[in-house]
Amino acid sequence: MAESRDTSENKMMQGELEVDVIENTLKNIRPVNEALYATAQKHLDNLTKPPGSLGRLEEFARKLVAITENRNPVLDKKVVFTFAGDHGVVHEGVSAYPKEVTAQMVFNFLRGGAGINVLARHAGAEVIVVDIGVDYDFGEVEGLVKMKVMRGTRNFLKGPAMTREDAARCLKVGIELANGYAGKGYKIFGTGDMGIGNTTPSSAIAAVLTGRPVSRVTGRGTGISEESLNRKINVIEDAIRLNKPDAADAVDVLSKVGGAEIGGIAGLILGAASNRIPVVIDGFISTAGALIAYCMEPGTKDYMFAAHNSAEIGHKAMLEKIGLRPILDLDLRLGEGTGAALAMVLIEAGLKIYREMATFGEAGVSDEIVN
Amino acid sequence: MAESRDTSENKMMQGELEVDVIENTLKNIRPVNEALYATAQKHLDNLTKPPGSLGRLEEFARKLVAITENRNPVLDKKVVFTFAGDHGVVHEGVSAYPKEVTAQMVFNFLRGGAGINVLARHAGAEVIVVDIGVDYDFGEVEGLVKMKVMRGTRNFLKGPAMTREDAARCLKVGIELANGYAGKGYKIFGTGDMGIGNTTPSSAIAAVLTGRPVSRVTGRGTGISEESLNRKINVIEDAIRLNKPDAADAVDVLSKVGGAEIGGIAGLILGAASNRIPVVIDGFISTAGALIAYCMEPGTKDYMFAAHNSAEIGHKAMLEKIGLRPILDLDLRLGEGTGAALAMVLIEAGLKIYREMATFGEAGVSDEIVN
Repeated sequence: MAESRDTSENKMMQGELEVDVIENTLKNIRPVNEALYATAQKHLDNLTKPPGSLGRLEEFARKLVAITENRNPVLDKKVVFTFAGDHGVVHEGVSAYPKEVTAQMVFNFLRGGAGINVLARHAGAEVIVVDIGVDYDFGEVEGLVKMKVMRGTRNFLKGPAMTREDAARCLKVGIELANGYAGKGYKIFGTGDMGIGNTTPSSAIAAVLTGRPVSRVTGRGTGISEESLNRKINVIEDAIRLNKPDAADAVDVLSKVGGAEIGGIAGLILGAASNRIPVVIDGFISTAGALIAYCMEPGTKDYMFAAHNSAEIGHKAMLEKIGLRPILDLDLRLGEGTGAALAMVLIEAGLKIYREMATFGEAGVSDEIVN
Repeated sequence: MAESRDTSENKMMQGELEVDVIENTLKNIRPVNEALYATAQKHLDNLTKPPGSLGRLEEFARKLVAITENRNPVLDKKVVFTFAGDHGVVHEGVSAYPKEVTAQMVFNFLRGGAGINVLARHAGAEVIVVDIGVDYDFGEVEGLVKMKVMRGTRNFLKGPAMTREDAARCLKVGIELANGYAGKGYKIFGTGDMGIGNTTPSSAIAAVLTGRPVSRVTGRGTGISEESLNRKINVIEDAIRLNKPDAADAVDVLSKVGGAEIGGIAGLILGAASNRIPVVIDGFISTAGALIAYCMEPGTKDYMFAAHNSAEIGHKAMLEKIGLRPILDLDLRLGEGTGAALAMVLIEAGLKIYREMATFGEAGVSDEIVN
């Protein structure tokens, strides 16, 4: 009987199961059929407008057709997943806010008062708040998805942020959510994060996986002083020297200098791609998760929309590495999924153009090019 | 009795009346009270997010508070005005499409099948289609606002596009619509255009009012060939040489190298500013109208939102002249008001942040900055 196994054996078995889930998910991800871009464009070029004149709205429609392998996709059920986790490295003074704010903001999300709640309502999307690694015992709280892998990461200035096993568990949380919400008929996912201190692991991931110097991918996060920024850069440099994350092994990078919510986001993206569901990547922290997913399986890229160009430096380097062009550029630097919710509104606009505009024939409009 | 006057006297009287309407409107425009930006920001800084972290969404909210002089503005009634007009200069082969498409597209707008219909529905905005200068007799058509000033402009390669009197009439059409819809309780306006050939007068206006060479502000519009582009540049250069529009007199520029729909848009903006109503400027053609309005009264600038960065070259020069930063950059080049409708969605997002987010006190979240 399972109950008779000792804890370490149990853990090993669990670890193997998680690896299976991840490997099966990776196996199911394949690049989209690019012929479908042309199929969709053919319809777009028959609508009452000069060819290509709706620019990126047309790109969004093409991409949705190719991702879903559906010539007439819909986006009726939308959801943003906001993964929350704490970070041991906040003890090094890398954040403007005390660690307690992570849990306080989780309550704010559940009451509907945060930025992500407002913007998701505006976009017609639900918000799913996931405790994947908050250092707080929420007990029974209505609306919270309790999938806690750890109570905060360890301070990665003293050793790895988490074990490889826990990193795999975080990925699996995201995959399970993706599978579950795909099964419930949701048509588009957005990623989001909450975690005081989480620009620090995100900058570490950016530095390791893009190969840029730490100082070029590390910014002020929620708004730290010049002095704290210098400390933050030193902390990340020291942590990379100490833990030696292997740039060729994204799970190693996630475990050594990452965070639970970043792992959850990476897993959600893997799960979205394996279910052929478009996923909108929020800002800096979400893109660190996206970069983990991309390095695990480059085919995920075809399923991603980059919501916006974050004000946080280092974001652009990660987007370039993946090869994504952001949709919005509004100087946002809040996270939570706020940029993803806004970008969903524009992606949906592109789909409505594709679905609702009249063709030249229907409208009796001349499509003859004369000059 | 008025009826006994001969036609030329009638016209003169009407001309004077229009000048009165325009002058009264200009007199009512004053820059916003900038102290209200700080008032609005104070509330924004008390919401559960790091100060300034919602970037331009916060800017939109501040601007709405200052424009409306209302600490709690609403945007419940939104409308995009699509002004349609024809252009004599199409005889010179400056457009990819035949002139007939202007009227055909007006019918498409009225049936709800065009890009602006789809995107305005998405934004929750109404579309008001205004015949201000189409070279077609629509007769009685449901839904069309009939304020025709002329049946197309004259070919400005042979002389002025219209008389100064007609230019004033076009401005007055826009002002009257603004006054009427302000009276009906609409809270935000968007501008839009339809007119085969209208990037040509817009480029002419851009060249005269920004002082840039014609070749630097003239692009391919709906998609003309290299040969047609060169012809278009030559036509505009010749027209400016012939008509000598006075850069210090925006109404002179509008009459000599402009268009009816551009005048209507300029008038709508003047009327919006005089009614303290925010107005979202669409793309290249609308910005030519905005530049006319701005040169008539620089105070209009405070009431304008620039919807997007058009793919048409020359747009940026006009936005810089006015001092506006576009909200979106989606490679759009359709016009009709499509960019304005999309930008409204983001402006409204900024307002919802301002109105709906919880404060630190309400949410029990710490706002203490520790580093």
